[in-house]
Amino acid sequence: MSNIKAEVLTIGDEILYGQITDTNSQWMSARLDEIGVKVVQKTTIGDSEEEILRGLQEAENRADIILITGGLGPTKDDLTKPTLAKYFDSEIELHETALIELEGLFKSIGRELTDINRKQAELPVKCEMISNKLGTAPGMWFHERGKVFVSMPGVPYEMKAMISNYIIPKLMKTFSTDLIHHKLIRTIGIGESWLSEMIEDWESNLPDHIKLAYLPSPGEVKLRLTATGSNKEQLEQDVEDQIAKVLPKIDKYVFGYNKETIQSAIGKMLNEAGLTIATAESCTGGFVAHQITSIPGSSAYFMGSVIAYDNAVKENQLGVSVDTMKNHGAVSEETALEMAKNVRKVLNTDIGISTTGIAGPDGGTETKPVGTIWIAYADENQAVAKQLKLSKTRDLNIKLTAVNVLNLLRQQIKANFELSVKS
Amino acid sequence: MSNIKAEVLTIGDEILYGQITDTNSQWMSARLDEIGVKVVQKTTIGDSEEEILRGLQEAENRADIILITGGLGPTKDDLTKPTLAKYFDSEIELHETALIELEGLFKSIGRELTDINRKQAELPVKCEMISNKLGTAPGMWFHERGKVFVSMPGVPYEMKAMISNYIIPKLMKTFSTDLIHHKLIRTIGIGESWLSEMIEDWESNLPDHIKLAYLPSPGEVKLRLTATGSNKEQLEQDVEDQIAKVLPKIDKYVFGYNKETIQSAIGKMLNEAGLTIATAESCTGGFVAHQITSIPGSSAYFMGSVIAYDNAVKENQLGVSVDTMKNHGAVSEETALEMAKNVRKVLNTDIGISTTGIAGPDGGTETKPVGTIWIAYADENQAVAKQLKLSKTRDLNIKLTAVNVLNLLRQQIKANFELSVKS
Repeated sequence: MSNIKAEVLTIGDEILYGQITDTNSQWMSARLDEIGVKVVQKTTIGDSEEEILRGLQEAENRADIILITGGLGPTKDDLTKPTLAKYFDSEIELHETALIELEGLFKSIGRELTDINRKQAELPVKCEMISNKLGTAPGMWFHERGKVFVSMPGVPYEMKAMISNYIIPKLMKTFSTDLIHHKLIRTIGIGESWLSEMIEDWESNLPDHIKLAYLPSPGEVKLRLTATGSNKEQLEQDVEDQIAKVLPKIDKYVFGYNKETIQSAIGKMLNEAGLTIATAESCTGGFVAHQITSIPGSSAYFMGSVIAYDNAVKENQLGVSVDTMKNHGAVSEETALEMAKNVRKVLNTDIGISTTGIAGPDGGTETKPVGTIWIAYADENQAVAKQLKLSKTRDLNIKLTAVNVLNLLRQQIKANFELSVKS
Repeated sequence: MSNIKAEVLTIGDEILYGQITDTNSQWMSARLDEIGVKVVQKTTIGDSEEEILRGLQEAENRADIILITGGLGPTKDDLTKPTLAKYFDSEIELHETALIELEGLFKSIGRELTDINRKQAELPVKCEMISNKLGTAPGMWFHERGKVFVSMPGVPYEMKAMISNYIIPKLMKTFSTDLIHHKLIRTIGIGESWLSEMIEDWESNLPDHIKLAYLPSPGEVKLRLTATGSNKEQLEQDVEDQIAKVLPKIDKYVFGYNKETIQSAIGKMLNEAGLTIATAESCTGGFVAHQITSIPGSSAYFMGSVIAYDNAVKENQLGVSVDTMKNHGAVSEETALEMAKNVRKVLNTDIGISTTGIAGPDGGTETKPVGTIWIAYADENQAVAKQLKLSKTRDLNIKLTAVNVLNLLRQQIKANFELSVKS
């Protein structure tokens, strides 16, 4: 559907005022993207007839498909249905099928249909009804002046069922089509501008039907390749060919593709190599362990952690020597190495990783300012440590330290163990 | 700012295509709402000059304030800056202060400024620069034709720092206003509908110039009181008077006001009572420790944790008896109590708290389905445990377990120790 444009229109004061997060529009955009419909705008407007009429008019000017959610409840402040009727100059009448479905729904939960709910079975005569198996407000499909307007409830699971079961198939029939194929290359440990310089030549030689975008987040940059054309297999092949070309330049920074995270990539590597791991954390205060255990099934390789915020815990639970801390400080290469080496012994794992540093905002000194962090890795045969110089911001330092120590872990597993999976 | 209208304009293909969730626009809307600016529309458009120009024009027609995020990176697909320059017919020049700040940023992380990054110090001459202490792209403030356009990076923490430190104060100066005074009452451990029944009478007797909103999040409900008028001191007094009226009804659920979090409230209580704490975590995998250590200065009372994912760690590091785990299971009242009692001994703290449960998605049984969790608290004189029956969703179970065990901690400190602070 190369030239078919869509707009996602969300109606509701509570979203406009920042009181609830709108997750619907992201989900709908992703579904449209999958069938090659280009979303040109997402718009949120309030519960007001005037604003809804204006939103509909502007969306009709821009797009071929307008997906609308919200404002279909039974109360007075729900204005979407009467406003759509006004916009299309359509009468509203009781819809027989809608009433039967509504009565069935109320019967199934053992309740009487109230007058307020009965009004939900009234629909503009110019629309086709979309059944709502999960709630009381039917959806509406308008096909007017060559454009499709679809109105759905804002309740996420009701909307999702309508989109998947009815709207996407019907859109694919109504409009026919150019395809779009996306793939994300996920990198870690290199900034956007360095990455961009590294792949400059490759980027400027990309064929016209493949576009590149950089998507940065703390410690990571995603490269998104988007191919447009008519043959699905060919598009997939074209993207793979381009990845094969660029990979040698950036191989060491790539940890996965699409929805892979650094935590899930590491989980796969540890599972594949049959390795277990423990963390010894000071400045990250449990955040590295939390990241690792956010992955379902992580109990197969993650045994546990010692969070050693206080130096006495470093000494007593992790056996870091008092001399090491006295001579080099708790934030030092030597302490980080002892923490990593010892946690794997204490918790009886193959690998130990550690963090120690000054997360801030207080605790910095002339020689060790806030943001000075040491991370380390140890297995049976080797141990390495690395110094990080991060920011002044506590939250960010904790996040970036975790990303860095997980990346160190990834690099060391790759270097020291046999893996058949590619990561 | 009763009649001042704003639009939030988000620029980025990755949001349009549903690849990332836009959390920025909700956060910005809430900040605008706090200063009485009415958000009339939220709009997301793609990385295209044509679409950005159209978006700017439409926003200018609708709103007085246009807050723009995204498209400020150093690469070719970042079009916001040149397009704003074009829209306002402005030259782009090297901005001296921006360059100095950028050089300082790179120096502090020990890296050389690349040519690509140097371009980020070039700005349209018609804008005022907004310093970015946390990243490489400065913000831009345009005040043209009586309207304010602000452009910020899409990286959430960079945008938030600019909004809080610069943009909100400057907007309040630029547009004057009716005053608005907000205060949040923060509750924990009670659902929205129960809370609402408890305070029904009080709510319906609120004076006309004070509005109430319920803002729920997992485990917590915030009550937001918003007073509008012309006298700052009077508004503050009116809100305090209402709080004094409602507090006796909901006292036991209130842990703080405004920006207080359950973690910071607990930090204050522990500091005040001179108590130290350790956590013993199974199903939360370090998340409780992470929550506690997200508070600056937490090293004064948080000593450390044992994350005991594997039962061997529960046995060896926490001394949970094999018999207890064999007879009652690792997810049981008895195991949770031993974990809490023993971690305070092992790490030599006044208080120990613990979590053990089935976070999911796998590992559930007939008698202990996914979402079955035990939490416990122990100090020198008492120990209590509590069972939770949570959801099927791993992330949510981890979060809700943390909220619940922190609330248990709060209740027990209040009951068992002398505090002069009110919490």
